[in-house]
Amino acid sequence: MKMIAPLALALAAGTLTIPALAQFQKPEDAIKYRKASMTLMAHHAGRVGGMASGRIPFDAKGAADSAAALEALSRLPWEGYTPGSDKGDTRALPAIWTESAKFKEYGDKLIADTAKVSAAAKTGNLDAIRASFGAVGQTCKACHDDFRKN
Amino acid sequence: MKMIAPLALALAAGTLTIPALAQFQKPEDAIKYRKASMTLMAHHAGRVGGMASGRIPFDAKGAADSAAALEALSRLPWEGYTPGSDKGDTRALPAIWTESAKFKEYGDKLIADTAKVSAAAKTGNLDAIRASFGAVGQTCKACHDDFRKN
Repeated sequence: MKMIAPLALALAAGTLTIPALAQFQKPEDAIKYRKASMTLMAHHAGRVGGMASGRIPFDAKGAADSAAALEALSRLPWEGYTPGSDKGDTRALPAIWTESAKFKEYGDKLIADTAKVSAAAKTGNLDAIRASFGAVGQTCKACHDDFRKN
Repeated sequence: MKMIAPLALALAAGTLTIPALAQFQKPEDAIKYRKASMTLMAHHAGRVGGMASGRIPFDAKGAADSAAALEALSRLPWEGYTPGSDKGDTRALPAIWTESAKFKEYGDKLIADTAKVSAAAKTGNLDAIRASFGAVGQTCKACHDDFRKN
């Protein structure tokens, strides 16, 4: 029971993610991690969006690969917004921590949006990709408007 | 409005449209991209490996999530080793470009290795994770030894 008590306490305090947080030894590590996530998302969203808008030639395999990458990547950045990582080399606004429910909503929406694009891209149908991709761009922009320094 | 429409479109996609014009406009962009991939892989491999070695308490969902992330991430860095991106802020050795078949073999091995860890982690069995994770660490190290500046 001595082992269970701290666990229960952590659960109650909502700090059960301690093993995950311990992955970032310093706030700078968390900032570097979430920025890396954004770099990769921008790259793969850029490719899919470029094809959707006709700026890059459509390539079904490239679109499917990048859409699948984007779907996987959309789950990653959020753990990088650790307490205390609002300070440093970051454009993250304090609202991320004070309005965390709204911030999480955007994250969840991005995960759902990118899953739709990935499903569309698997069909190899460019129109389906086009129809689903707009929501991703809108979610990125809305979240950046609310939670990122310009 | 003719001036505003394309701008609004670009804005709606945020920074996403810029990389789409060319996959990597400059060697620095390719270097930044592949470094970001490595940052994310190190984080998620660190979590799974930490659980495998007992340094981090085992958490089945965390292990499965990070192993799935690692599997997806293992496919990403390789396109960042573009011709001309051997120069700059990078530890990539020239052998990446002169011995590209061997480099690709490591990449393919990492993809296969991480798929096995991800499959193991989905079962929630720590012993299965342990049994599969060693190969990932070995592949990382072997590739770094051969293709990364110390």
